Amino acid sequence: MLKELWKERQQLVEEQLVRELEQEPPLDARLAESMRYSLMAGGKRLRPILLMAAADAVGAKGTDYLTAACALEMIHTYSLIHDDLPAMDNDDYRRGKLTNHKVYGDGMAVLAGDALLTLAFKVIARQKHTDPATLLRVVQEISTAAGMNGMVGGQAIDLESEGHRIPMQELQKMHMGKTGALFRAALRSGAILAGATEGQLAALTSYAEGFGLAFQITDDILDVTGDEKLIGKPVGSDIRNEKSTYVTLTSLDEAERLAEETVDKAVKALAVFGPEADFLRQLVRYMLERKN
Amino acid sequence: MLKELWKERQQLVEEQLVRELEQEPPLDARLAESMRYSLMAGGKRLRPILLMAAADAVGAKGTDYLTAACALEMIHTYSLIHDDLPAMDNDDYRRGKLTNHKVYGDGMAVLAGDALLTLAFKVIARQKHTDPATLLRVVQEISTAAGMNGMVGGQAIDLESEGHRIPMQELQKMHMGKTGALFRAALRSGAILAGATEGQLAALTSYAEGFGLAFQITDDILDVTGDEKLIGKPVGSDIRNEKSTYVTLTSLDEAERLAEETVDKAVKALAVFGPEADFLRQLVRYMLERKN
Repeated sequence: MLKELWKERQQLVEEQLVRELEQEPPLDARLAESMRYSLMAGGKRLRPILLMAAADAVGAKGTDYLTAACALEMIHTYSLIHDDLPAMDNDDYRRGKLTNHKVYGDGMAVLAGDALLTLAFKVIARQKHTDPATLLRVVQEISTAAGMNGMVGGQAIDLESEGHRIPMQELQKMHMGKTGALFRAALRSGAILAGATEGQLAALTSYAEGFGLAFQITDDILDVTGDEKLIGKPVGSDIRNEKSTYVTLTSLDEAERLAEETVDKAVKALAVFGPEADFLRQLVRYMLERKN
Repeated sequence: MLKELWKERQQLVEEQLVRELEQEPPLDARLAESMRYSLMAGGKRLRPILLMAAADAVGAKGTDYLTAACALEMIHTYSLIHDDLPAMDNDDYRRGKLTNHKVYGDGMAVLAGDALLTLAFKVIARQKHTDPATLLRVVQEISTAAGMNGMVGGQAIDLESEGHRIPMQELQKMHMGKTGALFRAALRSGAILAGATEGQLAALTSYAEGFGLAFQITDDILDVTGDEKLIGKPVGSDIRNEKSTYVTLTSLDEAERLAEETVDKAVKALAVFGPEADFLRQLVRYMLERKN
């Protein structure tokens, strides 16, 4: 069930992303092309999938919230474009394709990211099947998660920690911002849109924290044990670049143990839900066997 | 009246901007510092002033909408930070101070801009004295104006036209995006927040278009006739950089004539309003005598 439903919804997300981009004839064709280039460069579409799965878990129809789900993918994509810039990670390739700035130039890549972030909020405000007060709460949730005390804050810590090891506590703060905050916002937004009770929202928040941590630890493990072709970057690059990771700060064994423990906790957090949350249960378990 | 009220409200905007930045202890202190550096670097605070003045014109209390007004200044500031980057205009100074990336580095400047744009939407969602449906309309208005078919779109045209002259029509498209769209969103948002009728909204939209154009033409005139110390950049730099402007594409006389004509039209658009719109009338007339 996991792979089928995932694939099906990935498809829905990709179709909706194109629709959102093509709402109006673009003021500048090259800017629109560069936004589309990165938005359509593949990817797991994990954040929109999580938003819809959280709505499912609460008993709503996840696909009703496809519009808001796409906003998260726009934010994720903009963050990758800016992260790849020479001023940041200076990466030439992502998922086997040239990065945005290598194709469109640094200036246009800055603008494509800016435009995607802005479009995300426009798209949220267009979400149907919900009332304005709930949508505003989602705007708050996502702007908080993506901003200075969430994703961008985590990237700032990352930028400043370049070239020197950082202690475990700082590493966790960085990841909670850089990747955890948006996962959390995805799950919480899905729950809020679907009218979750406070108890359900708390359960999904707790799951989100486990999911984010499990994602990060397995990312660090894949850097050591992964297949270069599948992870899309050279194996062992974190070690060579002296990056602080769960593996370099502890050991491969310890990281694997921690990942399993974290996944178990995340599954337990879903105990308040019935089979409607099975997809979320499978999704976090999949973190332990993922290859990319 | 103009200068006094302007100064008074500038003060209110600056105090509120600091309050918004300091809502929570920052995840990364240097990121917060770099956001604050550019946000507090002075400036006319024209966009928040316009939002509040539009609300006044409709008969509401403009300062009730200080929070949403500040969101516009955050968006304006982020656009300046990104615009100054080496990948864009590569400017070392703005308003006589080092640009953000010269102080904090290119990577941090990208992130400071990203965080300010994100914070803007968080701040709008926090605006009091209004209902959620109206606020969502403001989110739509501002995200449309700031995005790919507004401000960022205009910047993309600017980026692509670098080093070669562009025809008048393309110049207008660029400015309508780059500066006009946000002025328009400021005035329309103020009107919407204050519960304007359709007729009032149309009048303020028409004023906004005149205001934006007058601002741009007088900006181009100042590049030729201005005082270096007051405009904060070398006089004649547009001509030396072969930039297309209203002056270089026509003549100084013709640009001055067009500016006056535009200001008259903008004032006429306000005919439906009483003395509550006097500040807006003075504001657009001021464009003709401004020194910076």
